[in-house]
Amino acid sequence: MEFDVIDFIKSQSQSSSQVDSSVILGIGDDAAVINLKANRQLVVSTDTLVGGVHFDNSATPAQIGHKALAVSLSDLAAMGATPKWCTLNLTLPKIDMQWLAPFISGLLKLATKYNVSLVGGDTTAGALSITVTVFGEAIAGQYLTRSNAKRGDLIAVSGEIGSAAFALDNKKSNLAAALHVPEPQLKISQQIKSFARACIDISDGLLADLGHICKQSNLGATILLEQIPVNKQLKDSSPNWSNYVLAGGDDYQLCFTFSPDNLAKLPANCTIIGQMGCGTAVKVLSNNQEIQFKHTGFIHFNS
Amino acid sequence: MEFDVIDFIKSQSQSSSQVDSSVILGIGDDAAVINLKANRQLVVSTDTLVGGVHFDNSATPAQIGHKALAVSLSDLAAMGATPKWCTLNLTLPKIDMQWLAPFISGLLKLATKYNVSLVGGDTTAGALSITVTVFGEAIAGQYLTRSNAKRGDLIAVSGEIGSAAFALDNKKSNLAAALHVPEPQLKISQQIKSFARACIDISDGLLADLGHICKQSNLGATILLEQIPVNKQLKDSSPNWSNYVLAGGDDYQLCFTFSPDNLAKLPANCTIIGQMGCGTAVKVLSNNQEIQFKHTGFIHFNS
Repeated sequence: MEFDVIDFIKSQSQSSSQVDSSVILGIGDDAAVINLKANRQLVVSTDTLVGGVHFDNSATPAQIGHKALAVSLSDLAAMGATPKWCTLNLTLPKIDMQWLAPFISGLLKLATKYNVSLVGGDTTAGALSITVTVFGEAIAGQYLTRSNAKRGDLIAVSGEIGSAAFALDNKKSNLAAALHVPEPQLKISQQIKSFARACIDISDGLLADLGHICKQSNLGATILLEQIPVNKQLKDSSPNWSNYVLAGGDDYQLCFTFSPDNLAKLPANCTIIGQMGCGTAVKVLSNNQEIQFKHTGFIHFNS
Repeated sequence: MEFDVIDFIKSQSQSSSQVDSSVILGIGDDAAVINLKANRQLVVSTDTLVGGVHFDNSATPAQIGHKALAVSLSDLAAMGATPKWCTLNLTLPKIDMQWLAPFISGLLKLATKYNVSLVGGDTTAGALSITVTVFGEAIAGQYLTRSNAKRGDLIAVSGEIGSAAFALDNKKSNLAAALHVPEPQLKISQQIKSFARACIDISDGLLADLGHICKQSNLGATILLEQIPVNKQLKDSSPNWSNYVLAGGDDYQLCFTFSPDNLAKLPANCTIIGQMGCGTAVKVLSNNQEIQFKHTGFIHFNS
């Protein structure tokens, strides 16, 4: 079935995307050929979304297309890289244009927004699964990692945390957009990349992802529960709001660290939630008391 | 489950692969960071293999790992590019080290053979599916496409054609290696890239793939059935041998065109099978008679 679907995707891609002169050879040969600018490094990330695992029937095909690209773009945002190109591997149970057309449209709309060219991919028959690989550029050496946090760094997050996980449990909440059409924080990424020291996108949950920064930077972290930005509806309607905030995942907001000397550079829609320190773990304080929890997945409070 | 599997893959990768100084940041951050050499273009290809569709229980995990990388490397061979890096997206029903360890070993053995570094990927739960994306380099402008064949070009193939499809139908044949552990023709690729005009790897079947060269070069082709190199066992044991040869697929040999002026450059294990000419289709002659067939999938002869 490969070639018909590819022809369709190619035609949609050429009509909706900007033509980027860096793409020497796009969809339709054995491989794509791309020009990198001089003095740039290639930054690559790839994510797979599986039907029934990463999305269900509550997401529209257009939303699934958006999210499939958004989650990988979010990784480039975490790196401080500029997205340029992507590939799409699509495994479909059958060719259903009622699904495929809006799916591709949703994906390409987001691609166009961030000047990302779809340069290739693969289509196969099988259980619904989507792999998007994104390619970005960084000026040589000017990218963000998880491993460069320093003791005393402030910890900040973009946006609000926990909304996507709340929406997953509460299908009729008005936070569904956070779950289904997350916005990759590429704008924030560009604003912070000159002064942030470590950065990660929050996909597994704030504690788990900040834990990755701690582990890879050989540090600990202390965060203040009440400082974490949370949607008011979530906080008001759920006694377990802190579970969503600390361990919910799927936020695709950025969590980053920076020297207090650079406080004045913090973008408006970012919030300081804590500080890097000694140790190896993430400590959460609520009203000056440490919260005990058993794991960084869904949390059971002891106190 | 993501992080345990990734740690395992990372440890295996670091112990078995050569460390390539072009990899600035490999597995374990939000994205990989890679250095391209000056005056090089990036060549990208990606393929998905689905369990039950692209392989079954007759393939060992090590063979599946080999093939998952081989089919994408074959695309780089078709481009005349030098493979450098790859990513692996692995969707698994469960974490089974009896499967995972030999799978990764089979993949990394082939990666090491061609100096390919595994730089990232993703692991998810779901029906078994494997996506490998490969990245290669080509000196700027020096790559092969499907679209550059010229009228009068000779058409050649590497190796023998049809063995993989024959092995798929005849599980106990001794051609199983052609099906399960195809060798990407990267060596041939390097030998022909200076003089070949159009090139494709034979994944869909000789007629279909040569058809892509015809379509994209706006030409026709005539090939001579008896000139196509075929394994002796296949030819002797199957009255339908020409079906396997013309439409079998999964060969991962190269099919390329070149000017008769360069005949002396043809590598030893390549065979001339025909010539590019007028028209838009692939014409097959057997004993000077044109063979009629209905489609380029599995073929039903009329004569």
